[in-house]
Amino acid sequence: MFNLDSQLQKDTIAIASLPLCELLLMNDANYPWLILVPRREDVRELIELSAEDQLQFMHESNAVARLLQTQFSAEKLNIAALGNVVAQLHIHHIARFKHDAVWPKPVWGAMPAVAYQEDKLAEVIELIYSSLAMDSGLAVDWGEG
Amino acid sequence: MFNLDSQLQKDTIAIASLPLCELLLMNDANYPWLILVPRREDVRELIELSAEDQLQFMHESNAVARLLQTQFSAEKLNIAALGNVVAQLHIHHIARFKHDAVWPKPVWGAMPAVAYQEDKLAEVIELIYSSLAMDSGLAVDWGEG
Repeated sequence: MFNLDSQLQKDTIAIASLPLCELLLMNDANYPWLILVPRREDVRELIELSAEDQLQFMHESNAVARLLQTQFSAEKLNIAALGNVVAQLHIHHIARFKHDAVWPKPVWGAMPAVAYQEDKLAEVIELIYSSLAMDSGLAVDWGEG
Repeated sequence: MFNLDSQLQKDTIAIASLPLCELLLMNDANYPWLILVPRREDVRELIELSAEDQLQFMHESNAVARLLQTQFSAEKLNIAALGNVVAQLHIHHIARFKHDAVWPKPVWGAMPAVAYQEDKLAEVIELIYSSLAMDSGLAVDWGEG
């Protein structure tokens, strides 16, 4: 049975259940930072996913990448499966900007997270929802977020 | 026309031409670190690849991930498309170990690169070649490396 890792639960806000992945928003207002977590038990690496799941992951990753470009005007996308600290497979999708806090460095460990203010969070979630709702490639099960 | 970025040329050793990507070895003996560069002009993001190219990239990325596990006994894979410094789309595939130089931190900018000694380099290239040659999913055009 799939259970979301407790550290991911603590650091993120649940946004939606995509067909394969849980879509999470990192609670860090420094950057628009989304995380995809395939709902598969005991999976640590992308290559442990079945071919079918890998293909579905590609669709969901593309949808998240598109929304970071269209809704957040990302100048660059950073997409990464690291997992050195949290073992459960999770794939970062981060919108980067030449004016962001640590450009051009990677974001991990570079700056303390800045929790979202309530109104800013509502705005960001609305941007994400409106983009996913328009994305014809996805059947989205909306979370409680 | 596709030309490999000059910084990538400087930092890496050309290993092979896979059907879609150039396979490069980062000249950094701190970690087994391979890079895939799709031979497509003016592409910065994975989502700029066609659906067909994305699928082929998935195959090649899987092959590289497998070889890092089987030939280098990677404890964890770090796979990332960042591109904040070098704009040309290139995807890092790094074998990580709990005893490596900067575990569990990401490798970028963490340690100065340590160039390979000649005999160690020959050994690493041999490990890569033997794995790719056995990978039935790939038609490999061997480079001069």
